[in-house]
Amino acid sequence: LQTKLPKVGTTIFTVMSQLAVEHKAVNLGQGFPDFAVPDRLIQALDRAMRDGHNQYAPMTGIPALRQAIAAKTERCYGYRPDADAEVTVASGASEAIFDAIAAVVRPGDEVIVLDPCYDCYEPAIDLAGGRAVHVPLDPATFAPDWSLVRAAITQKTRLLMVNSPHNPSGAMFDADDIEQLTALLRGTDILLLSDEVYEHIVFDGRIHESVLRHPELRERAFVVSSFGKTYHCTGWKVGYCIAPPALSAELRKVHQYNTFCTFAPAQWAFAEMIEAEPEHYEQLGAFYQAKRDRFREQLLTTRLKPLPVPGGYFQLVDYSAVSDLDDAAFCRWLTIEKGVAAIPLSPFYETPPQGQRLARLCFAKNEATLDAAIERLQKL
Amino acid sequence: LQTKLPKVGTTIFTVMSQLAVEHKAVNLGQGFPDFAVPDRLIQALDRAMRDGHNQYAPMTGIPALRQAIAAKTERCYGYRPDADAEVTVASGASEAIFDAIAAVVRPGDEVIVLDPCYDCYEPAIDLAGGRAVHVPLDPATFAPDWSLVRAAITQKTRLLMVNSPHNPSGAMFDADDIEQLTALLRGTDILLLSDEVYEHIVFDGRIHESVLRHPELRERAFVVSSFGKTYHCTGWKVGYCIAPPALSAELRKVHQYNTFCTFAPAQWAFAEMIEAEPEHYEQLGAFYQAKRDRFREQLLTTRLKPLPVPGGYFQLVDYSAVSDLDDAAFCRWLTIEKGVAAIPLSPFYETPPQGQRLARLCFAKNEATLDAAIERLQKL
Ligand SMILES: CSCCC(=O)C(=O)O
Ligand SMILES: CSCCC(=O)C(=O)O
Repeated sequence: LQTKLPKVGTTIFTVMSQLAVEHKAVNLGQGFPDFAVPDRLIQALDRAMRDGHNQYAPMTGIPALRQAIAAKTERCYGYRPDADAEVTVASGASEAIFDAIAAVVRPGDEVIVLDPCYDCYEPAIDLAGGRAVHVPLDPATFAPDWSLVRAAITQKTRLLMVNSPHNPSGAMFDADDIEQLTALLRGTDILLLSDEVYEHIVFDGRIHESVLRHPELRERAFVVSSFGKTYHCTGWKVGYCIAPPALSAELRKVHQYNTFCTFAPAQWAFAEMIEAEPEHYEQLGAFYQAKRDRFREQLLTTRLKPLPVPGGYFQLVDYSAVSDLDDAAFCRWLTIEKGVAAIPLSPFYETPPQGQRLARLCFAKNEATLDAAIERLQKL
Repeated sequence: LQTKLPKVGTTIFTVMSQLAVEHKAVNLGQGFPDFAVPDRLIQALDRAMRDGHNQYAPMTGIPALRQAIAAKTERCYGYRPDADAEVTVASGASEAIFDAIAAVVRPGDEVIVLDPCYDCYEPAIDLAGGRAVHVPLDPATFAPDWSLVRAAITQKTRLLMVNSPHNPSGAMFDADDIEQLTALLRGTDILLLSDEVYEHIVFDGRIHESVLRHPELRERAFVVSSFGKTYHCTGWKVGYCIAPPALSAELRKVHQYNTFCTFAPAQWAFAEMIEAEPEHYEQLGAFYQAKRDRFREQLLTTRLKPLPVPGGYFQLVDYSAVSDLDDAAFCRWLTIEKGVAAIPLSPFYETPPQGQRLARLCFAKNEATLDAAIERLQKL
């Protein structure tokens, strides 16, 4: 049996989490919070089960959740998608991304991705018979150079994938990025897939430039988000896609025969939570900003140099004062020898920048966890 | 935007469920129980959430659940798969089937399916660039004619898909089917995908001829099952695949980048439930047999003629004494005019048999629901 995915191994997140367990390291690698899910959410899910919402949900998601997503989108971005034709609930943002790619990418198509990028994009493109065309972000700021993106466009370009706030760097699109992106796509039939799972984790008064704010972009876009990051429940795997009716229709053809529907009781719980506590996502930026600020201050007492974090829950650190190892070796060493698990950046690249000495630390953690990590990092 | 899936519309299950709601019909169409999930399962899921099992589960499923599946498989079929290398938890049997097909079917490959078959098979094959080759089951007994299957095999045949107990008919493989299937595949490199989601719903002392009982078959097979049918929770979407290490490795490459993992708290709940109450699945056949027998007796008071039901929770009825409509039209009429939603068989076929007058009724319902349906069916 010859593999269809020769490049795929175990994802770096699993590798580092296993290594963390094995070596009793503080796990700042794989991105997940170690604090509690909001109590209301657990109670609402429990109630949904006891109320008997345990059979197939509608394929597109329960109406109450699609409507809550539509209303929240309007509150956040001034645009209300049609809950029936434009909002689809999926089993995590991952599934939504997989479905979107499977729905529109054909053999021979090219999909532009901006490196470093999340590792689920390329296998989905490969399975669709497409080819990922990797365009590097600026190695210092992780901003796109839109002229490089433009240069990568060919007749075969079917889709451009973007991600802001960005994993792993936390970089965010600004108004100028949106302007350039819009100009770039104008007059083409290139589709856009915008991965916005960190949409509510933005700092220092910045505005999340959701593609949904911009009519010229959203008319050609799959905009994907998730509740995992927003509600501290990465293991619940409820995400969604907002896209114009024609794109949603194609995505749903795949979703219908991939997972068909998503764990029903959680859909009821999120529908209630979004409406009952909008302050949860409104205050998420402030909640994480306090963590970020505290963690960065602590990092200044170590020999790791923190890079700016505009959004998301990851802190990149430059470790060149500590080690000459490449990032994969450094992260293994840090986990095994120093007891702190981190994620190297090279797996996010097709061609990692020569000599880049960056590691990613997740600060979606309790103070005690971060304190324990800092204590170990101070010994570097 | 040209669709990649021109044949896909809204699935018949959604169509008929919506029609049922619209016309206040008793819904015996889409297959789902209308009775409660076992209380222990709800309590265990609730406990898992409160214990903090809300972050990403391991990609392959939590070890406790994979081990419980391995142990249950051994108790049921005398074969214990390796929980680490051979058992993968997925977001429903649907996802497992989709992943298996995406993992091994390549452009130009042929996949043999036995009509009537479940409607998620072909779109997954199409998306992989393969071609579904439809071989009809016997129109009276729904047994495979293995010589027809043999005749359909070509150099391009990559995969054969089977389903026992069978949806929509309830037909089951017997020892002779297994022998012929084994002989058919011997010496070829054709893979097998066995959809066994109704494995525990078997009647009249029959044995479920799981592919897992048979070494020569299981060494080339993806065996897919689900907890939705076994635990009355079709909306929880937790399924799994058992396959040899090399096949599991390929399936996992897709799963890792499709949904990555499945709603974590439910995994803890199923792990506990399987071990604590094996009598639940052991007695499921008897539980449903009582429903089947009562329902069939009631049907004798109507002009619908019930076909034999060896397994599963669907009752086929011949309606030719009542109507000359084709099955799609009959089921619409039955739903709209007579207040009982049923599923036509034609959507399960590439080429429906001429003049077949069968409809599918789901008897996974409370007595009150079935009584209400019978009262209406008696007026036909
Ligand atoms: C699916 S595990 C990866 C979690 C994550 O989003 C990350 O760590 O970047
Ligand atoms: C995904 S809805 C279909 C449910 C089912 O298995 C059936 O009715 O056959």
